[in-house]
Amino acid sequence: MIFFNIDKNDKSAHIYQQIYHELKKSILAHKIPANEKLPSKRKLADTLRVSINSVTNAYEQLIEEGYIYTLERKGYFVENITQFNHRNNTENLQIPSDLKEKEIDREGWLSLSHMTADTSMFPFKEWIKSQNKAIKNHKDELSEISHPQGPYLVRKTIARMIALTRGVVCEPEQIVIGTGTQPLIRQLMQMQINNTKIAVENPGYSRIYSLLRNMKFDVSAVPLDKKGIQVEAIESINPQFLFITPSHQFPTGIIMPISRRIELLNWAALSQNRYIIEDDYDSEFKYGTDNIPSLQSLDRNQRVIYSGTFSKTLLPSLRISYIVLPPDLLRAYRCHYADWIQGSNSLSLFTLHYFIESGEYAKHMKRMNHHYEIKRKALINELQLRFKEDISIKDVPAGLHFLAQLKTTKGYKEIEAKAHLEKLEIYTLRRFMLGSELADTNIIKLVVGFARIENEEITEAVDRLYRIIT
Amino acid sequence: MIFFNIDKNDKSAHIYQQIYHELKKSILAHKIPANEKLPSKRKLADTLRVSINSVTNAYEQLIEEGYIYTLERKGYFVENITQFNHRNNTENLQIPSDLKEKEIDREGWLSLSHMTADTSMFPFKEWIKSQNKAIKNHKDELSEISHPQGPYLVRKTIARMIALTRGVVCEPEQIVIGTGTQPLIRQLMQMQINNTKIAVENPGYSRIYSLLRNMKFDVSAVPLDKKGIQVEAIESINPQFLFITPSHQFPTGIIMPISRRIELLNWAALSQNRYIIEDDYDSEFKYGTDNIPSLQSLDRNQRVIYSGTFSKTLLPSLRISYIVLPPDLLRAYRCHYADWIQGSNSLSLFTLHYFIESGEYAKHMKRMNHHYEIKRKALINELQLRFKEDISIKDVPAGLHFLAQLKTTKGYKEIEAKAHLEKLEIYTLRRFMLGSELADTNIIKLVVGFARIENEEITEAVDRLYRIIT
Repeated sequence: MIFFNIDKNDKSAHIYQQIYHELKKSILAHKIPANEKLPSKRKLADTLRVSINSVTNAYEQLIEEGYIYTLERKGYFVENITQFNHRNNTENLQIPSDLKEKEIDREGWLSLSHMTADTSMFPFKEWIKSQNKAIKNHKDELSEISHPQGPYLVRKTIARMIALTRGVVCEPEQIVIGTGTQPLIRQLMQMQINNTKIAVENPGYSRIYSLLRNMKFDVSAVPLDKKGIQVEAIESINPQFLFITPSHQFPTGIIMPISRRIELLNWAALSQNRYIIEDDYDSEFKYGTDNIPSLQSLDRNQRVIYSGTFSKTLLPSLRISYIVLPPDLLRAYRCHYADWIQGSNSLSLFTLHYFIESGEYAKHMKRMNHHYEIKRKALINELQLRFKEDISIKDVPAGLHFLAQLKTTKGYKEIEAKAHLEKLEIYTLRRFMLGSELADTNIIKLVVGFARIENEEITEAVDRLYRIIT
Repeated sequence: MIFFNIDKNDKSAHIYQQIYHELKKSILAHKIPANEKLPSKRKLADTLRVSINSVTNAYEQLIEEGYIYTLERKGYFVENITQFNHRNNTENLQIPSDLKEKEIDREGWLSLSHMTADTSMFPFKEWIKSQNKAIKNHKDELSEISHPQGPYLVRKTIARMIALTRGVVCEPEQIVIGTGTQPLIRQLMQMQINNTKIAVENPGYSRIYSLLRNMKFDVSAVPLDKKGIQVEAIESINPQFLFITPSHQFPTGIIMPISRRIELLNWAALSQNRYIIEDDYDSEFKYGTDNIPSLQSLDRNQRVIYSGTFSKTLLPSLRISYIVLPPDLLRAYRCHYADWIQGSNSLSLFTLHYFIESGEYAKHMKRMNHHYEIKRKALINELQLRFKEDISIKDVPAGLHFLAQLKTTKGYKEIEAKAHLEKLEIYTLRRFMLGSELADTNIIKLVVGFARIENEEITEAVDRLYRIIT
């Protein structure tokens, strides 16, 4: 009845595993019929010339998985097991070729992407020191799921910091920590009813635009004038939510002047159903003058949802962002997400707490502001030297990117294809035109990021851009 | 016209900041009318007895924020700024008392929660070593947003590991890394149409049940028999998705036998629109025998979505989970989430890669299996000693919790209230009854977790439980 041998020299499987596999195979193939009695442990051990222990282990594993059962004082029996229908053969399990990923070879590429941060100066040593404090002081909390809004201590630290640096008026209770602006906005908007109207800036943040559209909201992309999003257009659309980037409009760089800010706040104050989402994605970087106070700091009617992130100031890979909710939205949020597990790694969150508390964050920000200011100037200089009167740069001394207009006879698609050949990562304004195409004129608009490029790579990057454009 | 003084001894604000604030206040209050010319920089400096530099800095900040403008060779002028309407006074900005968070005092509490991991033995030193390798080798990737499914290298390591430990058949392409089972299931289900039918186990994972119901799906909670979820019930409901925990049913602990597994796979194989989500949340912990192979390992028709997590094996606070998608769902996923940013901290993900690759993960698992086995035995012994014939424990040697039935005259709510007074964190089965109430009989069912409790706390925890129950 037992038709297999044990290979005692097989290093890949223990003897009990070999017995288990052979019996399992026979049972699944119905070679041993249901309810048939198996040999006793001693008998099988004798037949196979192995220890009883090995057979015991194999039988126990088979019992746990339901292949055999045991009756007291009667022995071991084969379970009655349904036959598999529809067994494809294993070759069909290969992944189809269209889903195969090609390895992206970044060798030799230079990047003028706006989506990065400079890690070359990131104080990993100080970060790890803060992490050690987090491990030492929060072991219990690390073994648990955190508060749905993130640990209170960390929210308290963030609240204190943004009060100082951004004038944001809030209590730690109002902060919801999450893994990015995108998921936080999704959380917030998922609480809204189906036909909610939302207005966003155009050009603007395309990921948020497509997120909101995928969520089936009624999203309008509102054009900008030189002060930012147009108020008359907002009034005629009459949205419940307005998503804007007042401190440094993405991607045009406009700093919204106080007059437009007050107009928007006045508009929002007219109804309890109007909210402004202020995405303050890179306002910590300001060159020449002080930072621009947040829109939220001017709000006296709790109409502004402030959204901040550590993706630009620390590392995008940490995935730490937060929103500050006005009380009525906070109440709804808590009710809606009582069961929700906060997604940010709380080891990183407690680390962030000590990193801020020890003053390392402020030091890092000062260093990076200086570093980025130099890189930014060098890149602008180099671009102006090379392109001369063919370039016009919107020189707003803020953030980690700027908008450049270049004269060229080439169209957007041609430029993008050529950038790929030249191994230069660069994004054109086309990507940020929401729901409308950008016509090819004799001007190309580029969103030029300078976080990732090294000082000594700037000349080469501008060389490549020159070859792409001309 | 200028009605303010500068306090040169004020350490809290630079002189230029004082000028900026005073002018801003006057402009916002319309004390200086629109388009009025401001004193020249030299004149204001003389009046205030400060340096020209201070005035220049103040004027520049005011220009950036849009309070004043400059006309070449004419000077500085006040902008025409809209007046604020509806200024609430600042006292109204206090957070309402119902939203205030009370500090949770865990002092003196003991925990028999199933939701934790034991951090006392977590090898933080080895984790940090792996983190150092991650920092050294992946600096560029840390400065960027990662692949929407997580870095390929990390997916490759996970694919290799689950092939070995769980028999999961997959390519790295099929893995989607996320911050937890909950958000990954949400991502997956968000792609489904509105009236999709889903069946879940009852009792079962309540967070997933409420998530799916909040998403407005047609969710049925299907009762269990001794082999797990009932097949006839599934056949009559005819769902598109089935969410199950075959390796260690949550919370009852049932290990689904091979016969039921094959029945479910056969059911799923009958249509291209049927999927089984296998939540393999704690299968790495198995005592006495080897691990139970995953359901996915038996599937030859690409009907099983495997879902795994490092929350139990490492730390819940790391927020690293993943799902393995069959090719057709993967294709849809990529199309749907092309714009989506992966939420897991990639510093932790690369750290995980080195932690697994160096063998530290396997070592840790071995150590924890042994550690948990001892704690589990000690807790069960202590419970049986104390409660004698009044306790019946479903002793499935797997996972990080077990189900205990206790004779008592008390009802569920009374028990839960008393547990709070006794400072014992414990969850009753009531929490996991989906869409149905658990009647008070003379039996209380408890889901007893043993990850968090220390060996030397066991006697005290059981003492407290005894006082709660009797």
